[in-house]
Amino acid sequence: MRLTSDQDAFGHAAQDHHRGKPAYEIIERSDGLFAISGGPAVYLSGYASWRAHEQAALEHARGLVLDIGCNAGRHALLLQLQGLDVLGVDVSPLAIETARLRGLAKAEVLSINELSGKLGTFDTILMLGNNFGLFGSAAGTRRFLRRFKGFTRPGSTLIAESLNVYATDDPDHLAYLAENRRRGRMSGQIRMRGRYKRFVTPWFDYLMVSPEEMEALVADTGWQVRKCYHSEGPLYAAIIERIA
Amino acid sequence: MRLTSDQDAFGHAAQDHHRGKPAYEIIERSDGLFAISGGPAVYLSGYASWRAHEQAALEHARGLVLDIGCNAGRHALLLQLQGLDVLGVDVSPLAIETARLRGLAKAEVLSINELSGKLGTFDTILMLGNNFGLFGSAAGTRRFLRRFKGFTRPGSTLIAESLNVYATDDPDHLAYLAENRRRGRMSGQIRMRGRYKRFVTPWFDYLMVSPEEMEALVADTGWQVRKCYHSEGPLYAAIIERIA
Repeated sequence: MRLTSDQDAFGHAAQDHHRGKPAYEIIERSDGLFAISGGPAVYLSGYASWRAHEQAALEHARGLVLDIGCNAGRHALLLQLQGLDVLGVDVSPLAIETARLRGLAKAEVLSINELSGKLGTFDTILMLGNNFGLFGSAAGTRRFLRRFKGFTRPGSTLIAESLNVYATDDPDHLAYLAENRRRGRMSGQIRMRGRYKRFVTPWFDYLMVSPEEMEALVADTGWQVRKCYHSEGPLYAAIIERIA
Repeated sequence: MRLTSDQDAFGHAAQDHHRGKPAYEIIERSDGLFAISGGPAVYLSGYASWRAHEQAALEHARGLVLDIGCNAGRHALLLQLQGLDVLGVDVSPLAIETARLRGLAKAEVLSINELSGKLGTFDTILMLGNNFGLFGSAAGTRRFLRRFKGFTRPGSTLIAESLNVYATDDPDHLAYLAENRRRGRMSGQIRMRGRYKRFVTPWFDYLMVSPEEMEALVADTGWQVRKCYHSEGPLYAAIIERIA
């Protein structure tokens, strides 16, 4: 799976931002809500501007690292600079091209569905940038965590960021969460697509959970949440260890 | 014509910005392009941040003033402060409510189609904020300029801002302009709608023209472009006098 150029909203935005052009990312939610995300300015931001929980979580990276959904490689580039061996993967060809242009030595166009032991055995998996969301659903989380055993070892660490969707009083958001529950989905299973100019990604489910939900989801998969880092706002990072 | 609450994207954004909440305005063009406009941060901005051509054009305002598409009233409020008698009109009920909250004494929910001599005889008509666009088309420009005679007098001044659509090298924009010409429309007759959160305006045509096109459009309507003010960027303001 790789995005076509027309679908590569994230990649075009990353590339334009990298070239110094004004770029942005618009998120369309399945209920017709349109919002502006942090977008390329965040995805290509430097360490000093990162939130405390993100900086703290990154300290847990070691050894061979796989950065899933790396976009233009902000986390991967820092770890590479620190001497770690990092592979960045993303479904966006232009994001990967931009990551390479910015100096990321190992970067491949791959979706989370295409990862396997052929890529190596990783000590650390990075899913920062709210990328716990890539698991897509409760079932997806459990399925991927089991599958991740094919390219990690006991003691490997998953560093993942999520967003506590309950930390809002916005009536639109609260109605969306309630409707999800009514339909038997997790509250924070958000169906969305990304837009930039005329580029638009396919619709996809992105999962955002509270720390308690994350802990429960991970249980019985052979992984365990060891620690959570919080800073201001609803985003937080979890250190998840492979225990079996 | 007044926008319903669901359609009042501009008004909800203005109101939220006025209340200190983060707000934005997304523009969807008929070819599927999505962009972020200056939005409420511009519509509610203070004089010091306005562009030079906008400040210079406003100096031409005098007497009884009608501000068409006034949004939250940034221009109207300044002129009111200077002692002029200003009526602000907008199709957005929430923008008008916000203008009143900000202190605009005379503000009514009215579209450009609903203006008539019943409102008074105006010395100045303001269509800043790129609001020459409200004329919608070449035919609309001529029709409205003739109709404006019903509530102005010879010597009255129309202060209008437009955007020179040709000042771009963006291939998406250039293709859109070419397609418009192919269909017999003016290059800069942009079909669009505005979005904020789940609010979305109806589709409407918004006309953006070069200074030369404006001069030609206005000819033979009893109005004449007397002066153009430019500053950096494609926006400019024209001083248009009623000569017959």
